[in-house]
Amino acid sequence: MIQNKVLVLHGPNLNLLGSRQPEVYGYETLDDINNSLYEKAAINGWDIKALQSNHEGVLIDAIHSAREDGTAAIIINPAAYTHTSVAILDALNAFDGKVIEVHLSNVHKRESFRHHSYVSLRADGVIAGLGSQGYLAALDAVINAAAQT
Amino acid sequence: MIQNKVLVLHGPNLNLLGSRQPEVYGYETLDDINNSLYEKAAINGWDIKALQSNHEGVLIDAIHSAREDGTAAIIINPAAYTHTSVAILDALNAFDGKVIEVHLSNVHKRESFRHHSYVSLRADGVIAGLGSQGYLAALDAVINAAAQT
Amino acid sequence: MIQNKVLVLHGPNLNLLGSRQPEVYGYETLDDINNSLYEKAAINGWDIKALQSNHEGVLIDAIHSAREDGTAAIIINPAAYTHTSVAILDALNAFDGKVIEVHLSNVHKRESFRHHSYVSLRADGVIAGLGSQGYLAALDAVINAAAQT
Amino acid sequence: MIQNKVLVLHGPNLNLLGSRQPEVYGYETLDDINNSLYEKAAINGWDIKALQSNHEGVLIDAIHSAREDGTAAIIINPAAYTHTSVAILDALNAFDGKVIEVHLSNVHKRESFRHHSYVSLRADGVIAGLGSQGYLAALDAVINAAAQT
Amino acid sequence: MIQNKVLVLHGPNLNLLGSRQPEVYGYETLDDINNSLYEKAAINGWDIKALQSNHEGVLIDAIHSAREDGTAAIIINPAAYTHTSVAILDALNAFDGKVIEVHLSNVHKRESFRHHSYVSLRADGVIAGLGSQGYLAALDAVINAAAQT
Amino acid sequence: MIQNKVLVLHGPNLNLLGSRQPEVYGYETLDDINNSLYEKAAINGWDIKALQSNHEGVLIDAIHSAREDGTAAIIINPAAYTHTSVAILDALNAFDGKVIEVHLSNVHKRESFRHHSYVSLRADGVIAGLGSQGYLAALDAVINAAAQT
Amino acid sequence: MIQNKVLVLHGPNLNLLGSRQPEVYGYETLDDINNSLYEKAAINGWDIKALQSNHEGVLIDAIHSAREDGTAAIIINPAAYTHTSVAILDALNAFDGKVIEVHLSNVHKRESFRHHSYVSLRADGVIAGLGSQGYLAALDAVINAAAQT
Amino acid sequence: MIQNKVLVLHGPNLNLLGSRQPEVYGYETLDDINNSLYEKAAINGWDIKALQSNHEGVLIDAIHSAREDGTAAIIINPAAYTHTSVAILDALNAFDGKVIEVHLSNVHKRESFRHHSYVSLRADGVIAGLGSQGYLAALDAVINAAAQT
Amino acid sequence: MIQNKVLVLHGPNLNLLGSRQPEVYGYETLDDINNSLYEKAAINGWDIKALQSNHEGVLIDAIHSAREDGTAAIIINPAAYTHTSVAILDALNAFDGKVIEVHLSNVHKRESFRHHSYVSLRADGVIAGLGSQGYLAALDAVINAAAQT
Amino acid sequence: MIQNKVLVLHGPNLNLLGSRQPEVYGYETLDDINNSLYEKAAINGWDIKALQSNHEGVLIDAIHSAREDGTAAIIINPAAYTHTSVAILDALNAFDGKVIEVHLSNVHKRESFRHHSYVSLRADGVIAGLGSQGYLAALDAVINAAAQT
Amino acid sequence: MIQNKVLVLHGPNLNLLGSRQPEVYGYETLDDINNSLYEKAAINGWDIKALQSNHEGVLIDAIHSAREDGTAAIIINPAAYTHTSVAILDALNAFDGKVIEVHLSNVHKRESFRHHSYVSLRADGVIAGLGSQGYLAALDAVINAAAQT
Amino acid sequence: MIQNKVLVLHGPNLNLLGSRQPEVYGYETLDDINNSLYEKAAINGWDIKALQSNHEGVLIDAIHSAREDGTAAIIINPAAYTHTSVAILDALNAFDGKVIEVHLSNVHKRESFRHHSYVSLRADGVIAGLGSQGYLAALDAVINAAAQT
Repeated sequence: MIQNKVLVLHGPNLNLLGSRQPEVYGYETLDDINNSLYEKAAINGWDIKALQSNHEGVLIDAIHSAREDGTAAIIINPAAYTHTSVAILDALNAFDGKVIEVHLSNVHKRESFRHHSYVSLRADGVIAGLGSQGYLAALDAVINAAAQT
Repeated sequence: MIQNKVLVLHGPNLNLLGSRQPEVYGYETLDDINNSLYEKAAINGWDIKALQSNHEGVLIDAIHSAREDGTAAIIINPAAYTHTSVAILDALNAFDGKVIEVHLSNVHKRESFRHHSYVSLRADGVIAGLGSQGYLAALDAVINAAAQT
Repeated sequence: MIQNKVLVLHGPNLNLLGSRQPEVYGYETLDDINNSLYEKAAINGWDIKALQSNHEGVLIDAIHSAREDGTAAIIINPAAYTHTSVAILDALNAFDGKVIEVHLSNVHKRESFRHHSYVSLRADGVIAGLGSQGYLAALDAVINAAAQT
Repeated sequence: MIQNKVLVLHGPNLNLLGSRQPEVYGYETLDDINNSLYEKAAINGWDIKALQSNHEGVLIDAIHSAREDGTAAIIINPAAYTHTSVAILDALNAFDGKVIEVHLSNVHKRESFRHHSYVSLRADGVIAGLGSQGYLAALDAVINAAAQT
Repeated sequence: MIQNKVLVLHGPNLNLLGSRQPEVYGYETLDDINNSLYEKAAINGWDIKALQSNHEGVLIDAIHSAREDGTAAIIINPAAYTHTSVAILDALNAFDGKVIEVHLSNVHKRESFRHHSYVSLRADGVIAGLGSQGYLAALDAVINAAAQT
Repeated sequence: MIQNKVLVLHGPNLNLLGSRQPEVYGYETLDDINNSLYEKAAINGWDIKALQSNHEGVLIDAIHSAREDGTAAIIINPAAYTHTSVAILDALNAFDGKVIEVHLSNVHKRESFRHHSYVSLRADGVIAGLGSQGYLAALDAVINAAAQT
Repeated sequence: MIQNKVLVLHGPNLNLLGSRQPEVYGYETLDDINNSLYEKAAINGWDIKALQSNHEGVLIDAIHSAREDGTAAIIINPAAYTHTSVAILDALNAFDGKVIEVHLSNVHKRESFRHHSYVSLRADGVIAGLGSQGYLAALDAVINAAAQT
Repeated sequence: MIQNKVLVLHGPNLNLLGSRQPEVYGYETLDDINNSLYEKAAINGWDIKALQSNHEGVLIDAIHSAREDGTAAIIINPAAYTHTSVAILDALNAFDGKVIEVHLSNVHKRESFRHHSYVSLRADGVIAGLGSQGYLAALDAVINAAAQT
Repeated sequence: MIQNKVLVLHGPNLNLLGSRQPEVYGYETLDDINNSLYEKAAINGWDIKALQSNHEGVLIDAIHSAREDGTAAIIINPAAYTHTSVAILDALNAFDGKVIEVHLSNVHKRESFRHHSYVSLRADGVIAGLGSQGYLAALDAVINAAAQT
Repeated sequence: MIQNKVLVLHGPNLNLLGSRQPEVYGYETLDDINNSLYEKAAINGWDIKALQSNHEGVLIDAIHSAREDGTAAIIINPAAYTHTSVAILDALNAFDGKVIEVHLSNVHKRESFRHHSYVSLRADGVIAGLGSQGYLAALDAVINAAAQT
Repeated sequence: MIQNKVLVLHGPNLNLLGSRQPEVYGYETLDDINNSLYEKAAINGWDIKALQSNHEGVLIDAIHSAREDGTAAIIINPAAYTHTSVAILDALNAFDGKVIEVHLSNVHKRESFRHHSYVSLRADGVIAGLGSQGYLAALDAVINAAAQT
Repeated sequence: MIQNKVLVLHGPNLNLLGSRQPEVYGYETLDDINNSLYEKAAINGWDIKALQSNHEGVLIDAIHSAREDGTAAIIINPAAYTHTSVAILDALNAFDGKVIEVHLSNVHKRESFRHHSYVSLRADGVIAGLGSQGYLAALDAVINAAAQT
């Protein structure tokens, strides 16, 4: 069914997951995370499209596409663009579905410029510091919310 | 087994849940939330102790007790004390287990004085805006983390 | 009649009234102030419940009770909690009646940390610098407003 | 008797009262307010002079006159000049009588640039959010203070 | 027809146009600008009233008059009062028609205290840096908007 | 003639015009706006090249091209990049022609992070809040300025 | 000779000199000060025009007149407008002669909002804290500077 | 003799001393500290009352009691309430005896929110970073001061 | 040998070098600079890869490649992205080699928003204001450091 | 007579007067200035001691000496130490005579870090922007004040 | 024994102790304070070297000497340099022994620029407001700490 | 030839190089650094004068001397005075030759008060984080610049 689509967006540098500072971000790769999501989605009858990009414009284009292909929700880890991209915020503002923002680490314990999130001004929910499990919790939230409406 | 204890703390005014601004905080009462937690914990062989208080000191005392009775994790919705209580932060700093901070609404969309959290300086994970499901996601995180160690 | 109840809350240190810095706060005691209020209320067919506490939680509990016992209005001098208590603000936000904030002195003439009031974000009216007469003016405002509806 | 004079000053745009945003400022006109004040003053043996001006200089000139004609108190709603006029503050600083600052709405709930008042640095008392009744409460304060000395 | 009136307000020091720093503000005088506006208005069947004053109160009085004489729009170059006059903002807030703010130079390239505009909090449109043509563009905007309704 | 070229740049998310929040940005599409510009330009013997991109780098590349192909002016609506892109500012700093910055809505009435514009530090003129007519006013300004030199 | 004219401007509340807080501002009246200036000017073959006003616009108008009647210098004590009037700064910016700013008291020892002066951004010289002698020192500076050119 | 009473107040979380981060706060317990104080006081003919509480209100109540039972001095380690409690400051302001503020660690080397102390606005002396010896130095100061008067 | 690779990254607008504001940035082109680097590197047995891009994402991708192809050091002139790109900082944080940040001009003498550098939070060395020689000094630093280990 | 001594202190870099940026500071040397002062002082029966130093400590030592040798006033141009030296402020605070602060240029027109003066917190009078004449005006002020007492 | 040396440093203006504002700093001279320290040190078998200077460089030189002559601890009252000297902080950072910072008055009750201490970033302990006894308490702390190791 | 003189200034605490925190500043002594500079200068026909001082005034005096003895350039590591000395900035402003600022470590990675440099407001070039090689790179820059003119 068309409403069961979720777009999962991974922001800049997340392609390095598993190799960059694993003591901070864990040893799982982005493929590991995506696979867990595909699996959980499949069980619940949902369809996941996952995309990673280091290019702000590519992420914006993807959000625009989601407006038109019946995507029900966006799970986004905006990484560094969390703190600097008004353009991604504006793209999400133009998306009508649910938006869940995920961060692998607890950003509030890091440098102060990482404490502010433009995306949080639009997100319905925000999950930080749960590692890769945060994505699964986000998917749970999307599925549960859909079940309630 | 003794390591399977979780303390769930609800801060000031949360006793009003279900009756205060339900369009913001939902129609569930605190008992509803606690019951969902008891249920999920029981299934997983965990033990939950839940406490709500409008008194900062009572919450601190409860955190101190958790240090001594083998509690493995604290799930805390500090409500208004999120933004003002260095004392609760210090109490949590003296607790060695996992700490997950939960907010029913996305605090980043509210008044600016609600954007800063002292508790986030200690929390392992932070979940906001998922409504009562946030507590269950927090419990999931606690159980999963325990399973991995 | 049940709508004629007013809760008068006096915040921390106000129990010292009459003995603490009388040149700033006047020579009247809290009992003097409460008695004037009782008297004026009685004349107008209103019922006053007055409470002083140095405990933030006790003040919050009292506001919660007022939600349930048909109290029409709260007159509150939050004293030092004016500037630090988001929790009292939240409790008042959950109260549907009229809220009048009273300060004995003109707080704007004192240290800069006394210029900001969390309670003012909720209060319908604010009276400062009129000494104990401020409470009577607040009661006037409550009675008049009730008369107009 | 000469000491029984009160000057009531209404700042810029208050001539529009009753027609401008009545849902915020009420349906009463400035004449209505002045008439209530005249009436109450008369009953108490006081004399009121009321003046509205959109010109900062005119308001300052009026305060200067009050220094010389035996005016006992000034009740002032400085409106927009509350936040910008050091000159009115200085004029009031040169006036020896009582000064009560009145705002129809609770300015602390409006834009942040309305939270600071130069006039409050001089005012003996400040009343906000009580609508037109605030003026009467101010007059009460003036009369009572005079009675006590 | 009565709806075709536009009030053009020029703030302090603009009477000096053509003689003050012509390299910044151009060689046109205020009369030149007003004449271009009269001409363009006449062609389009509109009526312009233009006023320059160095007195904040005179500008406010003029805005009040516009509320009552059926003026459809105000084109205002508040000059120095742009940055300091809450009173002009409040007067414009009480005006129901269209408001276009015009600045001859690009204020964002000048001293930082010229970057903030109280009038912009009310203006429908803002035009800066187009020199005297900015006024004509503002008139265009007023005429076009009227044509669309 | 070669000097009659204008580059019109539309920043991120403006491809959604007409479908995103039409109550804020109007019902016109970007094609509608471009067509009005083509039409007006043609009448005046000017040539327009219009480009929209969600990619900061693409916008910069386009500005660089304009330096070399004899473009006389750039009309740019930088959208979200207004507030975050020093790189676009630098590219415009390297362009010698006229630069007019256009915003559909009055950005000064929106969130505070939208009040600052890097592009305004370079723009000759800034037009905000006139909707799609702002682009035409910008083109007028370009044509008039060229006529005067 | 026409170049020997000096305009002396006294800002708001200075008409009260001698009666307002004499322990701060001294016992001399404005007439005393003006007379000393007239006297010293006469001896040196200069002509003084002195004006006090509580109206910002009147002060601006006077500065404009000085541009046209051959006034060589302006000595101005802007009083409260020192800190709030961009319009007076702009008027002085349009005056080509010498500008000396005078304050009776040392403003840097008073409230922090009195530490900033818009007029100082234009003044050639600033004298504070010398009491009425500051005006005479300013006149000295004007006369000496004229003698050197 | 009645003047020889000292109240020693320990703020929130100090009950954990000896077990919480001993590398920061040392291995001594609160009992150890209190015993050293009792001992030193006894030798000098002084009487100590020591109290620890995690409840702001309890600490305030204790300060109030000290006003009435002839306590000569208060030695207070306000811990986390140092930085957040205006109410404790106000309570101490109402106490006429000597107040010495003690911190075990040098708070100026910790997070920036620990650099500001409300209590220091009232304290006669402040001692930080001397560990438990700081309390004894505070008692010395109290005893010496009493000896000198 | 594989460790002798250096990646030289030139950020946005640097492709204009030699033609943009040569009085600020010098008359050398980017090719001139790269050629000097190639030459010096060749003499020392090092290998240089140089890349310029106006696209933040392209720069990030290049840094990621350097992690995997044995590049020993990155010399980066982030240009405008210096001040806005947390994403480039994060990419560099994931690179283990030496990082030298180069600016042609002394950024501390320019606008205040150019005084902060995200890249400096990661860079081992920073060189500014030495013109194109700064790149050669950076290469020296890389070569010397390698020689010492 | 012993009370007729004045200490004139010139701060760092003022030894360069006449050679450093004469377009800003004038062509007079420090000797020229001191000679004018000696001359004027002699005429009035006063004694001047002048000292220039680039060493903060030397200036402080000189102020201390002035406390003990009956110096009636200090005229000080603290130059760069104006903005950074709390130690000179403290030394002046310990001096009982008159203190006049002099700056050759109008510091308020220069970089913002030159707008704050520690010395002004103590100075009786402040003179800026009158060039070397400022010193003579300061001496006038000292002599006149002495004449009045 | 060589480890028993303590350097006592008194910063600028402290040579005036006993004569400068004795109501703030007490009537004791620096010699009185040093003598008390010599005496207490002698009793405990310690050796004190005391130095006062108004010269920042002299204080730094003394700290450097202490690194080389086996000094165990530095007791420093940096006076005005507390708030401005990064150089003294750096010198202390290079000293390995114990550092105790002493202030005679409670600096937190004075002007806000006296609330920040660079020295506190290095000091092991800080004592303020105990008058000259603060030095003795500092010496106690040094002696006790040595006894414990 | 006279133009070939370079003054190398080392600020406070740099005499400790090699012994203070060598893991941060390296094991080289100041003599080692100076010797490398002498050697490189000699090879290139340049003359170096090197000076270290902990006294701000001594450094200023040295800069003044350089103005008069034909010194072509100053290489300065202002150390702690980087952040606090307006007086050194002013001295350098009076020097017409080239100024290169050198820091051994990357100051942008240290405490925030080390991020601002007064000297950078004058320096032609700034080099940080290259250790002692930074001085040699600075000398290269001086020699190269001289070769080009």
